[in-house]
Amino acid sequence: MDPWTALGLLAGFLTTIGFVPQIIKGYRSKRMEDLSLIMPILIGVGMLIWLIYGIWLDSLPLILWNAIALTLNMIIIALILKYGGSKKG
Amino acid sequence: MDPWTALGLLAGFLTTIGFVPQIIKGYRSKRMEDLSLIMPILIGVGMLIWLIYGIWLDSLPLILWNAIALTLNMIIIALILKYGGSKKG
Repeated sequence: MDPWTALGLLAGFLTTIGFVPQIIKGYRSKRMEDLSLIMPILIGVGMLIWLIYGIWLDSLPLILWNAIALTLNMIIIALILKYGGSKKG
Repeated sequence: MDPWTALGLLAGFLTTIGFVPQIIKGYRSKRMEDLSLIMPILIGVGMLIWLIYGIWLDSLPLILWNAIALTLNMIIIALILKYGGSKKG
C-alpha cells in the first residue's frame, strides 16, 4: 500500500470512529437533548450517497468506512430519538 | 460533469452541511452539554488528513468540502468549549 492510500484510510478511520465517543457519552448519560436531529439525518443521507459512490468507484475504503459510519450514525439517531426529549432542531 | 462526479459532490455537500443544524441549535440554545468534545476533535483531525489527501489527489471536491467541514467543525468545538459546561466525554 502506498503511503497516500494509507493516509486516506487513516482519514476515513478518524472521521468514522469519531462518532463513537458521542455514542458512549449519550448511552451513559442518557441525555441527547442538546444534539440536533437534523445533523445525523443530513450526514446519514450523505454517507449513504458516499457508499453508493464508493460501490461505483469500487473503492474499498469508501465502502468500508461509510458502511461503518452509517451504522454508527443510525445509533446516534436512535439515541437522540430515545433521549433527545421534545426539543426540536 | 458525469453523473457519478455529481453524486460525489452531492454526498460531500450533505456530510458537510449536516453540521450546520447543530451549530444553529447550539448557538440558539446556548447548550452543548450533551455533546462529546472528543467527537469533533477526532472528526476534525480526520478532516484535516482528508484535506491533505485531497491536495495530493488534486481533488477539488475533497479539498472544497473538507475545508468547509473543518471550519464548521471548529465552530462546533468552540461552541462545546463555551456552552458545554464541565461535563467530560
